[in-house]
Amino acid sequence: MNVVDAIVRKRNGETLPDDLIRGLVDGYVEGAVADYQMSAFLMAAFLRGLDGAETAALTDAMLRSGTVLDFSEIPAPKVDKHSTGGVGDKVSLVLAPLAAACGVVVPMISGRGLGHTGGTLDKLESIPGFRTDLEEPVMHRQLAELGVVMVGQSARIAPADRGLYGLRDVTGTVESIPLIAASIMSKKLAAGLDGLVLDVKYGSGAFMQDEADARRLAETLVGVGVANGCPTVALLTSMDVPLGRAAGNWPEVAESIRCLRGEGPRDLERLSVELTAEMLVLGRLEDDIGAARSRVRRAIADGSAIERFRLLVEAQGGDLSVIDDPDMRSGAEPVFDVRSDVAGIVQSIDAREIGLACVAMGAGRALKEDGVDPVAGITLNKTVGDPVGRGDVLARLHGSDLDRVRGVAERVASAFRWGPGTPSQRPLILGRFAAGSWSAVGG
Amino acid sequence: MNVVDAIVRKRNGETLPDDLIRGLVDGYVEGAVADYQMSAFLMAAFLRGLDGAETAALTDAMLRSGTVLDFSEIPAPKVDKHSTGGVGDKVSLVLAPLAAACGVVVPMISGRGLGHTGGTLDKLESIPGFRTDLEEPVMHRQLAELGVVMVGQSARIAPADRGLYGLRDVTGTVESIPLIAASIMSKKLAAGLDGLVLDVKYGSGAFMQDEADARRLAETLVGVGVANGCPTVALLTSMDVPLGRAAGNWPEVAESIRCLRGEGPRDLERLSVELTAEMLVLGRLEDDIGAARSRVRRAIADGSAIERFRLLVEAQGGDLSVIDDPDMRSGAEPVFDVRSDVAGIVQSIDAREIGLACVAMGAGRALKEDGVDPVAGITLNKTVGDPVGRGDVLARLHGSDLDRVRGVAERVASAFRWGPGTPSQRPLILGRFAAGSWSAVGG
Repeated sequence: MNVVDAIVRKRNGETLPDDLIRGLVDGYVEGAVADYQMSAFLMAAFLRGLDGAETAALTDAMLRSGTVLDFSEIPAPKVDKHSTGGVGDKVSLVLAPLAAACGVVVPMISGRGLGHTGGTLDKLESIPGFRTDLEEPVMHRQLAELGVVMVGQSARIAPADRGLYGLRDVTGTVESIPLIAASIMSKKLAAGLDGLVLDVKYGSGAFMQDEADARRLAETLVGVGVANGCPTVALLTSMDVPLGRAAGNWPEVAESIRCLRGEGPRDLERLSVELTAEMLVLGRLEDDIGAARSRVRRAIADGSAIERFRLLVEAQGGDLSVIDDPDMRSGAEPVFDVRSDVAGIVQSIDAREIGLACVAMGAGRALKEDGVDPVAGITLNKTVGDPVGRGDVLARLHGSDLDRVRGVAERVASAFRWGPGTPSQRPLILGRFAAGSWSAVGG
Repeated sequence: MNVVDAIVRKRNGETLPDDLIRGLVDGYVEGAVADYQMSAFLMAAFLRGLDGAETAALTDAMLRSGTVLDFSEIPAPKVDKHSTGGVGDKVSLVLAPLAAACGVVVPMISGRGLGHTGGTLDKLESIPGFRTDLEEPVMHRQLAELGVVMVGQSARIAPADRGLYGLRDVTGTVESIPLIAASIMSKKLAAGLDGLVLDVKYGSGAFMQDEADARRLAETLVGVGVANGCPTVALLTSMDVPLGRAAGNWPEVAESIRCLRGEGPRDLERLSVELTAEMLVLGRLEDDIGAARSRVRRAIADGSAIERFRLLVEAQGGDLSVIDDPDMRSGAEPVFDVRSDVAGIVQSIDAREIGLACVAMGAGRALKEDGVDPVAGITLNKTVGDPVGRGDVLARLHGSDLDRVRGVAERVASAFRWGPGTPSQRPLILGRFAAGSWSAVGG
């Protein structure tokens, strides 16, 4: 392969054949394609675009750059979910045990938080003792026995993505929908799935701020999944206000436990049920989404969901006492109350500001190398539509470092938007993309 | 300076301020901007473009990355010429001593041949003993005494250009008019000039194949020169057929000597006189281009031009006996005649094919590291408009390696295009760009 020729063809706006894209990725991993050539290619791809076939080929080459897991010895359907990230998005914690309780096998490989959104690994590790670095044979065994495993990405999964992501970060080529899609899907498809559900979020608390971009990302992700032989469905969901009432690692685990017990906030439960139901349909455990929703709700109501979560936590070394009584978690109690100095009706709560306040309190990372405070976070006491009087508690803040907690109080209060009347809100689930077209979501 | 921010702004199509462009170039030379960041920037600049001010700032930053020569102690005007390159383009060899004979000081810094066009350094070095690697104090002295020096580019001139050029070559970012202009002008303007004449060529034997591109390049080059305080004029010239009758290093020197004696082919003399006359006007030695042309022609007619060339060769260590009698040059005689197997009138001679045949004979380089055969080349015996009979000699081939010479005979014959009637040809000089507008060239 002539590297310069491949770059020039993309620069000129040509559509590259699969083997050229594969050659670039393989050459990059082997060192035959230099960083400076790959970054020129990435910029050309950013500005000229990659079509569906090119994005699928890029994804396939990236996922084949490392280990592709194979759980085919487990007879049940393997289905996972991926969210593009939002504030308070703890759906994975609810959905993974819930889907497993319904008969889906969930080999969930997650990342850490970076920026204003949290990461599933950081949330799980706020459970004392919980380990996310399982060896592959342990993963296989647990998956066969429990139907669910929640781990971090090993260095052997899609190493090309790590290299490319690092390069994009320092060469101004991050915000490209095909490159984002290839990065996400190369990691997810390396888990040997029979199906994948995507939660593509947009709004102030999401990476995508624009509906058209979010729709294009959803379409691209689904296209890549299908092109690589993995049935894939995407929901487009709203991320203007935090999902649920809690943000931060342990606060989100505690809220997830309540949700698994049937005591969760309505928006979190609704979204968790819908995404899990999609997994059941993708896994052919149900033909009909309505029936799937009922089955998922039953698993919450009959206690099998929370029981599966307990088994998961136990299997991965976590402390069960804090699962059974979240208030027992040391340092979990709120340390500061944010009170309102105005009276009115809450019109909105800026998700991005809440996410950034969590990071400032130590719940997230400013730099990749930073550690996190497992208990730091925010519990919203008031939400959109609530009438609030002067002096009422808007939010309760948690955290080990009282100075950092106090430092964000003003910011948290300012995230609330006020008005006199009932606010209008976008629906939580805005659409569903599958088999090449968008549809509305009922239920 | 935030490097990623600068890349992102150019990627988004913004016009960058001078200090950001300067910061990128300075950072690159110092190692603070990585190769992979610069290549991403270059690709963004390639696809989004750089406007005149950005190109001027880039050029200025590149030329200031190294030594800027200063000949201000020499009172006469310092003016140089640059050609974008063509087959048989030996104008520099004629023009430099000719301009010096007319009172212009010519500090000419040239390059080597790469691709199908020759390089002035290779041509000069085909004169036995001629040295092109003079130290700066020697250059200064010779320039003060003789008014002309012809040397290679030292590593201290515009080091940023060497780095950027090398990077562009392997990242598919060569053919960008602003980047080409900045590369050319950073080297030329580092010679501390009072004026610069550009010969922008287009046609089969030039790098620019398209008239519109060539015009844009001319406009960009002139704009950069003027923005950097150097009065600059460009001629747009045709490069469909080789210039003159000779191509190859020594064959071109021999033809230049004939031209300096007033015995040169008409096209070579015309272009050399016009470009030299422009230098006289730029150097304020003449106000009027007509008067300048007359003065230049007189310098040929009265022998002062060839005498200045003799002094130049002598000063730089060359063998004067071959200047005085070019046929005495060892190995200079033709070793193979290419004969026509058709009868007709020559309609055209493909300059690019003649250039590539020269390279194949050893007159040029396939790789930067290759040496060249100083005597290899082609003398055209028939030119456009000539009637030719079957068996007539079309071209005479020179070279040390008879196998390589014979190997191109077919290619040289095929470069001739045949027809029954008188061919129509584009004029040699197609236009002149200065002070923001194009004009026709008389004379």
